[in-house]
Amino acid sequence: MAYRIVIIGTGNVAWHLASALEDAGHTVTEIYGRDIQKATKLTGKLYTTEPVDSLDFSESEAEIFILAVSDDAVTEVADAVILPEESILVHTSGTLPIDVLGYSSATYTGIFYPLQTFTKGRELDFRDVPILLEADDPGVLAKLKKLAKSLSDLVYVIRSKDRKALHVAAVFASNFSNHMLRLSEEIMSRQGLDFEMLKPLIIETISKSLELGAKKAQTGPAKREDFETMEEHYRFLNYNEQVAEIYRLISQDIIDSH
Amino acid sequence: MAYRIVIIGTGNVAWHLASALEDAGHTVTEIYGRDIQKATKLTGKLYTTEPVDSLDFSESEAEIFILAVSDDAVTEVADAVILPEESILVHTSGTLPIDVLGYSSATYTGIFYPLQTFTKGRELDFRDVPILLEADDPGVLAKLKKLAKSLSDLVYVIRSKDRKALHVAAVFASNFSNHMLRLSEEIMSRQGLDFEMLKPLIIETISKSLELGAKKAQTGPAKREDFETMEEHYRFLNYNEQVAEIYRLISQDIIDSH
Repeated sequence: MAYRIVIIGTGNVAWHLASALEDAGHTVTEIYGRDIQKATKLTGKLYTTEPVDSLDFSESEAEIFILAVSDDAVTEVADAVILPEESILVHTSGTLPIDVLGYSSATYTGIFYPLQTFTKGRELDFRDVPILLEADDPGVLAKLKKLAKSLSDLVYVIRSKDRKALHVAAVFASNFSNHMLRLSEEIMSRQGLDFEMLKPLIIETISKSLELGAKKAQTGPAKREDFETMEEHYRFLNYNEQVAEIYRLISQDIIDSH
Repeated sequence: MAYRIVIIGTGNVAWHLASALEDAGHTVTEIYGRDIQKATKLTGKLYTTEPVDSLDFSESEAEIFILAVSDDAVTEVADAVILPEESILVHTSGTLPIDVLGYSSATYTGIFYPLQTFTKGRELDFRDVPILLEADDPGVLAKLKKLAKSLSDLVYVIRSKDRKALHVAAVFASNFSNHMLRLSEEIMSRQGLDFEMLKPLIIETISKSLELGAKKAQTGPAKREDFETMEEHYRFLNYNEQVAEIYRLISQDIIDSH
């Protein structure tokens, strides 16, 4: 089943979604950009999509409207957009509840959240991108499921209350693990050492962790309760009190969660 | 240049090193295990290696002796081992200095540290394992370099004082990033959510981070200085004070290191 779809937004999510939708056989009828040039640039990758800078879609032939703008713009754009009868409006945010779309002119609303970190110009296979769905109306949810499954092999229906937990978990898994790499990079560069040395270790650590589970995969001084080494490391880090405290606290948590 | 080598130890490092050495054309003459059965099991994978449970190598034809035992056993075993004239004894530890081998009967000493997390039975291409070397004697260092380059494409000579910094950096990059995944797993399982959902995000995050650098790759509420979301997440985590504090501290550090 092919849908006619409008994408509202020209950011990273819109960029990846537009191609994935077209590749899956759907028609992206229009792409909205506040900046028409950005919309034009994005439609340039597609076959027959029209770039628009008006939020009046009353004449649009699309059925599903995907709001792919930054979190803090969602409410404003949702309130402003003019949609045809029987239209479905979904946002792509992992943090916002469904009811931020409550004052829109859409007949139905939902969430269509691709759980991935998108970077413009970085190739990504959308079939491996989990898509998390939510909709109050069962018929709408069924449609969103069909749409999502046409793009990805990993489709989940998730309740709003679980989406907050999921987002917190994603912060630890993604932002915080990335920050650990950042701190590692800084220690290496401060000492004039080549961060390349650590890359094979990082790749193997994460791959082992995803395979065996993080508890079983854990190693290192905290896991061994090697207090002498931890004390030395803590002293080594005394040039940055906050980073030393991060070392102490995470080590303690590793010890406590044996 | 092929060497005759003895491996002392039967753990994960010994296990991977033994095969890699043989594959590279060296002869592993003996493998020592305090438990002869473990040594026998390990020699079973090799062509002509003898398992031994005596540390008297005065009659051995090997030239390089690799001490692949746990950190806390290194000094004891180094003190006890009896080595032939002109022998080189190296340990494989990332944390211990070279002088823990100072009271051994070796003519020369050094460090031969494969910087990787080894798991018995997990396939690993040794050519991608960085090997970090140290030796006081230039001739010995040259030999260790040749040996290391026959196994791996990533060979570094590193001073003892840098090795501590390296180890701290490795703790952040490996143990702590793994613990972030652990905390993420726990949040998901507590909520009855499938951790599989987050795996594509984790893989893409790490791959992006290693490619662009962690600073450039960072996203999320702390990076955006979205205090409202951080406050909500912090409240969500109040069932575990220590984990909430980890959230607060790392978020603060991300904000501070813009």
